[in-house]
Amino acid sequence: MIVIGAGPTGENVADRAVRGGLTAAIVESELVGGECSYWACMPSKALLRPVAAVREASHVQGVEGARLVPADVLKRRDSFTHNWKDDSQADWVKNAHIDLFRGHGRLAGERRVSVGETELTARHAVVVATGTRAIVPPVLAGVNPWTSREATSALAVPGRLAIVGGGVVACEMAAAWQALGARVTLLARGGLLERLPGFAGDLVADGLREAGVDVRLRASVTAAERGGFAGGADGGFLEGDAVTLTLDDGTVLEADAVLAATGRAPHTDDIGLRAAGLEPGSWLDVDDTMRVRNVSGGWLYAAGDVNHLALLTHMGKYQGRIAGDAIAARARGAEPAVTDRSSRTCVPQVVFTVPEVAAVGRTPAEAERDGIRTRVVEYDIGNVAGAALFADGYAGKAQMVVDEDRKTLVGVTLAGPGTGEMIHAATIAVASEATLETLWHAVPSYPTISEVWLRLLETYGM
Amino acid sequence: MIVIGAGPTGENVADRAVRGGLTAAIVESELVGGECSYWACMPSKALLRPVAAVREASHVQGVEGARLVPADVLKRRDSFTHNWKDDSQADWVKNAHIDLFRGHGRLAGERRVSVGETELTARHAVVVATGTRAIVPPVLAGVNPWTSREATSALAVPGRLAIVGGGVVACEMAAAWQALGARVTLLARGGLLERLPGFAGDLVADGLREAGVDVRLRASVTAAERGGFAGGADGGFLEGDAVTLTLDDGTVLEADAVLAATGRAPHTDDIGLRAAGLEPGSWLDVDDTMRVRNVSGGWLYAAGDVNHLALLTHMGKYQGRIAGDAIAARARGAEPAVTDRSSRTCVPQVVFTVPEVAAVGRTPAEAERDGIRTRVVEYDIGNVAGAALFADGYAGKAQMVVDEDRKTLVGVTLAGPGTGEMIHAATIAVASEATLETLWHAVPSYPTISEVWLRLLETYGM
Repeated sequence: MIVIGAGPTGENVADRAVRGGLTAAIVESELVGGECSYWACMPSKALLRPVAAVREASHVQGVEGARLVPADVLKRRDSFTHNWKDDSQADWVKNAHIDLFRGHGRLAGERRVSVGETELTARHAVVVATGTRAIVPPVLAGVNPWTSREATSALAVPGRLAIVGGGVVACEMAAAWQALGARVTLLARGGLLERLPGFAGDLVADGLREAGVDVRLRASVTAAERGGFAGGADGGFLEGDAVTLTLDDGTVLEADAVLAATGRAPHTDDIGLRAAGLEPGSWLDVDDTMRVRNVSGGWLYAAGDVNHLALLTHMGKYQGRIAGDAIAARARGAEPAVTDRSSRTCVPQVVFTVPEVAAVGRTPAEAERDGIRTRVVEYDIGNVAGAALFADGYAGKAQMVVDEDRKTLVGVTLAGPGTGEMIHAATIAVASEATLETLWHAVPSYPTISEVWLRLLETYGM
Repeated sequence: MIVIGAGPTGENVADRAVRGGLTAAIVESELVGGECSYWACMPSKALLRPVAAVREASHVQGVEGARLVPADVLKRRDSFTHNWKDDSQADWVKNAHIDLFRGHGRLAGERRVSVGETELTARHAVVVATGTRAIVPPVLAGVNPWTSREATSALAVPGRLAIVGGGVVACEMAAAWQALGARVTLLARGGLLERLPGFAGDLVADGLREAGVDVRLRASVTAAERGGFAGGADGGFLEGDAVTLTLDDGTVLEADAVLAATGRAPHTDDIGLRAAGLEPGSWLDVDDTMRVRNVSGGWLYAAGDVNHLALLTHMGKYQGRIAGDAIAARARGAEPAVTDRSSRTCVPQVVFTVPEVAAVGRTPAEAERDGIRTRVVEYDIGNVAGAALFADGYAGKAQMVVDEDRKTLVGVTLAGPGTGEMIHAATIAVASEATLETLWHAVPSYPTISEVWLRLLETYGM
């Protein structure tokens, strides 16, 4: 089998297929390890963890002096990205007995992939795991803005950073660069983190403002002009060589760097989709084994961001395991034993901003859309003893969405410091469809923040 | 109904009974709020959280300067204990419509409790929730050592602190006082945290040593002499007025304060147990509604530490809810709808030492004792990307105990920084008896430390 794209998803597909008895080739045009390793999860969290450590230490009476050393934070980031060299990941691929082909992979016909002059033919399947790229909105196209790539890989701290967007990338990068010394203005067309319950975005707006970010909601950029701004792949910029942004209310804003964080498009425009009868540039619609629908012969799979189910590394890896196992099973003439149960209804996500936000499953709005009769219960996490102990003046909120017919949880959102590691409890609760009655006997330890589980159940009426 | 003991357990019993339609009286001889609020969980975690925040910040490249200000840490502790005043808790009792009787409560006959000159008679039930006190071993009795009470409430930092014991109190207080400036020697007769899998104690020994604690394992105190040491309830001590400890290997050790952390005894020696036909000083054996066995008429209950099921605040509160509901149900002539399912097989615990240790359910040894056919899977948490991001050089380990017949988890132990909030996921998994197959679809977020769940399942062979 052949995988196009050696990000975490592609690596997992190939690894599982090899473990299932197949041979596998993986094609990569950039760095083995993909977006996550070099321009997303890893560098962003390498930047954000020091920010969180300082913030947390600064909110505990009896602790003094914690401060960031921006140059060392950037070094830390460089170390986690291996200075954008992929030797160790290429070694991993080799040790996993996967053949690596470097170059641009394109579908060339049924089960065929071209890589430059080379043409590979798969016996069983081809998997597209090419992920996504940032969308740069037209109004910013002329000023050569940062995308998530430059925001995670910039080599120096801009004096003034304007961030256009209100989603995860925008909120995380605002937290990081403000803490590292930039004066950040965040321009969101609506609110922040709008796919989540409103309190999450409200708490993050408060947290970012407390950190010094100029958060402007319901603000749109209507014009952008560049005075020689030198953004680009290396993240360089020239102080004083500013971009001027005009907002819809007439306000004019200057920035030394502008980050476009306004969405993602699938990396499918130049991978030969027509050879499979599909439209270039489209998201790839898959079934619960990650097989692309409506491709005759059923030889094409798509896993990870490119199938648009859940644009998150861990979900891509999960789909990668399912796809790799499914391809190996079908190669043996068997039907896949394990199929996707989570990509549509049990997707966890942690936003590493200030404060952290973590969620899994359906929001109240999504549950309503899916016709589930719900009851929504909320609780201020700051009232939990463990939260008061964790941070002075802890501000946070928890919400659970109960399926009232089945008495199970279909969604949980947690916003507040330290909630990132708390969401897996909710992920297990949602995935296992544990009833509230059962959850009542899962006693949270005192005094941890997790005691909010008890409070939510008590608030429900148990 | 009447409750003897206004700790968190007693408060929960009374509160639930009142919500169930009964009237309730609560008898307390010391402070309303109990050991947990003034001499255990709250002050210890108020001391330990700043220690953890500094330690965590100090293990992240890019963060500098985080340091403890011991006087402020003690102030923080004093604030969490309300300076050992219980006005706010007494107000809570009042607002919960519970009658508070201050004084020493003793059983005086069936459903009767004396408090000084007053005698109260319950219509339905009496609940003992008097908890435990520290055991001072004979060898230390002559030097008037600190117990957990003085260790959590001391007003100043001793120069040299010797801790006798290797359990939770010993490990937590060693971490706290060493960080606050004491030179701590920990003397454990065996290893550390011996009820848990060995790696937990090993990691804590490493962590405490790295923090500067002189950890001596397999060391027993054979003699203790006092040179005028002035320990006591106020935690005072005189520097230079030392205690001399002789160890079994002949070593002699001086300390300005000695903490006896060698176990707990039930607070039942002077509560009139003979009136119920029970032996003073004994633990109280209960059924799954917290009713004491072998008391004619079934009017006596015991919840929390005093029943010896699980000496932890959260388990006491859980049992309190069950007992209060059961008494209210029986008063209505109904059988209790909810009975104890967790106190014997699903007890979570977090040890807030360096590093944190968290566990739930059965250890491999306990599972074997219970005749469960198990497979034990371990994984080094430091190999998880989220752990490497959380702390440079992260050292930690995770273990899951699988019931091989049912393919469920019966126990999980996590040792490492930040694991305290991670254990609730395991508590839900154990309580809900989720199968490994289901847990496979509970995808942990990348890059969190919780991804160790995926690694454990992969290591198992999934």
